[in-house]
This record gives sequence, structure tokens and C-alpha cells, in this order.
Amino acid sequence: MELTKEEIFEAHENGKLNIELKNPLDTQKDLSICYTPGVAKVCEEIVNNPDSINTYTNKNNTVAIVTDGSAVLGLGNIGARASIPVMEGKAALFRKFGKINSWPVPIENVRKDGILDVEKFIEIVKSIALMYGGINLEDIKAPECFEIEDRLEKELDIPVFHDDQWGTAIIVLAAIKNYCILSGKYIGDLKIVINGAGAAGIRIADMLKNDGAKNILMIDSKGVISKKRKDINEFKIRHAIETEKITLGEALGLADVFIGVSKGNVLSKDMIKKMNHYPAIFAMANPTPEIYPEDVLEAMGENPFIMGTGRSDYPNQINNVLGFPYIFRGALDAKAKKITMKMKIAASEALAELARDEYIPEEVKKAHNIDNFKFGNKYIIPSPFDPRLIDVVANAVKKASKE
Amino acid sequence: MELTKEEIFEAHENGKLNIELKNPLDTQKDLSICYTPGVAKVCEEIVNNPDSINTYTNKNNTVAIVTDGSAVLGLGNIGARASIPVMEGKAALFRKFGKINSWPVPIENVRKDGILDVEKFIEIVKSIALMYGGINLEDIKAPECFEIEDRLEKELDIPVFHDDQWGTAIIVLAAIKNYCILSGKYIGDLKIVINGAGAAGIRIADMLKNDGAKNILMIDSKGVISKKRKDINEFKIRHAIETEKITLGEALGLADVFIGVSKGNVLSKDMIKKMNHYPAIFAMANPTPEIYPEDVLEAMGENPFIMGTGRSDYPNQINNVLGFPYIFRGALDAKAKKITMKMKIAASEALAELARDEYIPEEVKKAHNIDNFKFGNKYIIPSPFDPRLIDVVANAVKKASKE
Repeated sequence: MELTKEEIFEAHENGKLNIELKNPLDTQKDLSICYTPGVAKVCEEIVNNPDSINTYTNKNNTVAIVTDGSAVLGLGNIGARASIPVMEGKAALFRKFGKINSWPVPIENVRKDGILDVEKFIEIVKSIALMYGGINLEDIKAPECFEIEDRLEKELDIPVFHDDQWGTAIIVLAAIKNYCILSGKYIGDLKIVINGAGAAGIRIADMLKNDGAKNILMIDSKGVISKKRKDINEFKIRHAIETEKITLGEALGLADVFIGVSKGNVLSKDMIKKMNHYPAIFAMANPTPEIYPEDVLEAMGENPFIMGTGRSDYPNQINNVLGFPYIFRGALDAKAKKITMKMKIAASEALAELARDEYIPEEVKKAHNIDNFKFGNKYIIPSPFDPRLIDVVANAVKKASKE
Repeated sequence: MELTKEEIFEAHENGKLNIELKNPLDTQKDLSICYTPGVAKVCEEIVNNPDSINTYTNKNNTVAIVTDGSAVLGLGNIGARASIPVMEGKAALFRKFGKINSWPVPIENVRKDGILDVEKFIEIVKSIALMYGGINLEDIKAPECFEIEDRLEKELDIPVFHDDQWGTAIIVLAAIKNYCILSGKYIGDLKIVINGAGAAGIRIADMLKNDGAKNILMIDSKGVISKKRKDINEFKIRHAIETEKITLGEALGLADVFIGVSKGNVLSKDMIKKMNHYPAIFAMANPTPEIYPEDVLEAMGENPFIMGTGRSDYPNQINNVLGFPYIFRGALDAKAKKITMKMKIAASEALAELARDEYIPEEVKKAHNIDNFKFGNKYIIPSPFDPRLIDVVANAVKKASKE
């Protein structure tokens, strides 16, 4: 799908969101209820019963999208200012798919000598968290993002979820589950290569191992993460392996699965040809994938393979939009204080199951302008436009939160 | 007008705002434009041209409503949590009357030993200001609010406006201008009593003096602010006078104007009777005024007087809603960096003039369910429902910003 520069910029003019009234404000009486004197009664109720903030304000259905813009999708450290269009887009997805109000909170002045001041960042988020029923951390670089999520989860009484860590991992796990079914392979046997050892890479490895994966090789900007490396942080050390391999090309030999969550344009057709029979290639770098689907098709010819990207304009969009709106919907509905591992796994399982359902809603066919969706190599995860997602995934998450 | 508890609480269920999409998000193409891959082009544009944040994000038409909840209308220091219904109401008014997106930013954890930590408050606001085209400070106690406004105005490049200081002062000045016309009195001759020497009281005195008032007596919780007092801060000292009077009752003898911006229920019928001929009583404490209009009518009988309150359910609502939506509208449209004194005076003059216009729009008659609006004792300032306000006041402010 070709997008023109004009249509992109036109759609962004003056931003993508509006803050609207729920009730009309047309009469003197409306004004007396919404503002003074009526509103004082509601304030007094919250003074007397602090929990009623969840009943009589927007808090319980509003999520903050918090970022410092240090690791924006495929663009890197562009800063809080230039990250705003992404955050507004995310808020649009929260509203559209999760029926959740959400608002961008880009944070500036949190660098000391160019380095993210984790303490200050946490302090600011804690100071403004009151208005929100949940915090979605977004596009914050690793390894700082791990401590930030961990600390905020402990120190706040609302769900905190770094979507770049967990969102991608949850969708990838769903895709791998269905890849195993289609290819007849067992997760414990898969040879998995993850290119990128940032927020997403680390948590993908965590979740796949949690589900039974045993053979995972990770690669960062310096090469394969082997036990010999001395230059890796505590999060990478957990996934370091004994190996002589150094390059991505070497790592890919006979691999079943490639998972790309770093730079685009790093795979060649020749590298793909070295993979195992019936491989899965999840090239999720944005906006330019590690390799384009057209090139994979050329490399594979008639041989079976599964190809996914993070983009909206190719089949198998392994995109967080399948996760965060429904994970938060479920957590908010359950009044959960945290988004636990159980809730994350439940979301993943619900997604995988939904893709295997034979029935395809009309909305999906219409949105993609495709008539013949069927569980298979080109349809291993649900479409973002599947109207069943909100019930199926949010309910699975809600149920898991009670366990 | 009687409001039932039920109708107030029902209107507040789950909050008063919704964050909505400007454009539909129904197809794969919509998603590609709003989010990945299309959004990356917009981020890159902002990296290359930082000012384009004002063109391609919500910033330029979005105002933060920032509070610590330390001085909420008539309720006092109820804290950030219980202040949220007021902030949401304010956001509703911004949208309805000023066509401005606005969002509550209640700030917690900014007290040290129970005292507002001004430095920390300023630091937090500066860290989250990026998303906004203006900052409306709300319900922050004096005297801290003076330094906070002053510092933020200097240190940010967007308009900062503490509505409790200036909003009320602007509307009161408009009302006093029209009171002078109706009563035939001259502002330099008025004997004015201001009950309350917080944010609003101080700025009302400033603006009235700026317009020619010479005889203003202020009262705080300890009594009349005379030069003899040793317990008053620098802001009150500026308005201290030589006087032997101590109580509100004594101060009111032969006063032309009473302006109440503190506690309700402090005036009796007997005190009103001691005022000068054709007095103006602006009893703006919320939700309970200093004296109810029914009691003033009883005290005054057939004698002429002007009575205003801050409430939506009596005539002459001297309420900030006549100011802030249009002042910010004008400032945002003008791309002003500050809201200057000239812009504030221009808003005040535009309001006074509009009330004197003979034509009354149908919307006003309908909203108040009154047919016979006419400039006079019961109609000295425009109705909040006057659809001309946005053009008249915002344009006056915009014009003044260019001077």
C-alpha cells in the first residue's frame, strides 16, 4: 500500500485527538451540575471516600502514555518532542480498540549529562499518576526501562505496563504458538534467533522460555550474545549462550524462527535460504522491516514459510495493537493493581486461539479488502479489526487477574 | 434552581470527558497513516523542524489544567485527588466555550512537611509542559501561586495563566465598569471592600487600581488589612491602608462595592443596610455565597442595588467561565508566548461592552429560560451562553497581543 506524504500530513494537522464532553452543556442547569455549585458535592464525596475517585472521575478508564522519546519505533532516540505523533497515534488505538481514554505524557528535562535520570523520571510519573487508572510506558530505552517499569509497578497502585517490552512479546508468543501448530514443530525444539536485545528482545526471550522454548540465540549491535562477551548488561547475561557464532548470518543457519526487533534491512535473501525447512520470519523493525515480504517470497519460492512484519500494510501484522488495548481493558475492568505474568500469558493464548477460529467477521474482510481469510501461513494472528478481540482478550485477561 | 444529589452524581459517573479520534480508524490504510509506518514521517519532520510540533500534533490547541488542590473553590485545601471533578468541569468549559482541548493535571507528592514545595512543583510542570499550548493554573493557594505563575511564565515559552488570580479579576473589573455606568458613579470615587486576600483578592485589587480605583480596603481571615498589621505577606502589604477599622462590619459602612472572594455566609442583612446608596454586592464564595440574593433583596427593598454571585443559578454570574476559554482562545490563535496585562484588560473591556449591547441572542434566552434580558441591575455582564463571546473576547485578546 502506497501512502502519499500529503495524506499522512493532512491526517496529522492539529493532532489526532479531541477532548470532548460526555454530557451536553447547553443550559444554566447543565453548568450548575458540571461546575459550580454542583461539583462541590462530588469533591466532598471524594474527600470522605477517597476510593470514589474511581466512580466519579475519568480516572478509572484513562491510561497515560508516558515516554521520554528515547527509543521510538524504528527512529531511536528522537526525544519527547518528536515522539508526540506516535503517542497520539497510540492514544487513538486505545480509544478505537480498547474503548479507553488515553492521553500522551511526553516528559522532558529528565536527562543528566545526556543520560536518562531514572529517579527523576519515576518521581515525575508518580506525581502525575493520580489522574490515571493505568500507566502505559512507551518507547523508553533499555536497560533504563526495566528499572522504571519495575519501580513504578511497586510504588503505584495502578497497572504499569511497558508496551515495548511486553506488548510485542505477547503477540510474538501467540504467533509462535500458531506457527508450531501449522509447521508441526514443537516449541522446545525450535531454534530461535532474536535480532535486538533491547526492551522487546529481552521480554520476547523471557516469554518464549516461560512457554518452553530452549534454544534461543540473541544478537545485539555488537553481534551474537555469547557467554564469552564481557560487555553485556545483567538483562542480556540471562540470555547469553555458549556459542562460537558471531554474526547474524552465522546464527541463522538452520534456524526455525527469526524475530527482528532492532534495525531494518539486515536480512538478505541468501540468509533466509540458510534457515531450516518451513521457517518463520517475523521482521518487526519499523517502519522498514529487516527484510521485505516480497524478498522472502523470492528466496523461498514454493517452499512453505511464515512471514510477519510490524506494519499495517502486509499480512500477519505482529503489532502491539493486538495487545495493549485489550490487556488494559481487562486490567481496568478487573480493577487489577498489576498486570501479572498470568494475565500476559492469558492474552497471548486468547489471541492464538482467536486466529484459529474458522469464522471471520465481515468487519475484518472489509477492513483489509480481502475475502478469503483462513487460518494458515498468511493468517496466523487475528486482524486488528476483529471486533471479537475486545471481548475475547479482555475477558481472558480479566479472568486471569482473578486467579 | 434545586439540584438533586442524584442528578449531580449521575452526571459525574466515570468522569465528564472523553478522548476521541478526529479521523476514523476503520481500515488498514487508516491504521498505516495514524500509526506505523506513516507516523514516522511526521516524527522525522518534527526532528528536522521542531516548530512543526505546533502544526502536526495536538499541542497548539491543548491547555493543561494544573493544580495541587490546595485552594479549591469554596472547599479549600482538599488536595489533588478530590479536586479532579472541578478540573474535569473546567476542561468541559474549555471545550464547550473556547473550542479548546484541555486536560486535568492534578499533581501529588509536592508537599514537604505539609508545605507546597514550589521548586518541585515548577520542575514537574516544566517537565510535562511539552504536550500543551498553554498552562492554566487552578486552585493553587496564595501566596505560593504568585511565585509559581511568575516563574513558569518566565521559564516556559507558552502562555501561563492562574485563573483564580486573573480570571476573577477580569470579570469583576468588567462588572465594576458597568456598575459605574448604571449607578452614575466614578471608579475613582468608589469605596470598595474586598473580603479575601488570596489569589483572587490581590489581583482584583491590582486590576481595579490599574483602572483608576483609589479607595480599596481588603480583609483577610485576621480582619482589615491596615498598615498597623505586622502579620501580612508582601502581596498584602501592597494593599494595606491607614485605618482604624478592624471588622468586616465596620469596613462596610458607606461602602459602594462589596467583593467577596473568601468564605460564604459572612454578610448579614444589617451589614448590607449600612452600605452606600445603590451598592454593588458581588458575593462570589462558592458554593455558598457571602449572602444569598434573596436576603439582599429583603434588606434593600425598593432601593436600587446590584447583586452578583459566582453561581450559575442566579443572575449576574461573575464567573471565570466568561474569561478563561476566550482568553486562551485568543492567546492560542495569536500564538502568544504570554498573556499580558493588555490582553487581560482587553478581555475585560470586551465583556463589559458586550453586556451593554441591546441585541440578546436567542441562545441566551433559551439557556436561562428568561425572555427579557436587558442591560441593567440584573444583567451587567454577559451570559456564559452568549455565542458572541468567543469572537468578541478572543479577538479583543488576540488584537491586544499584537500591540
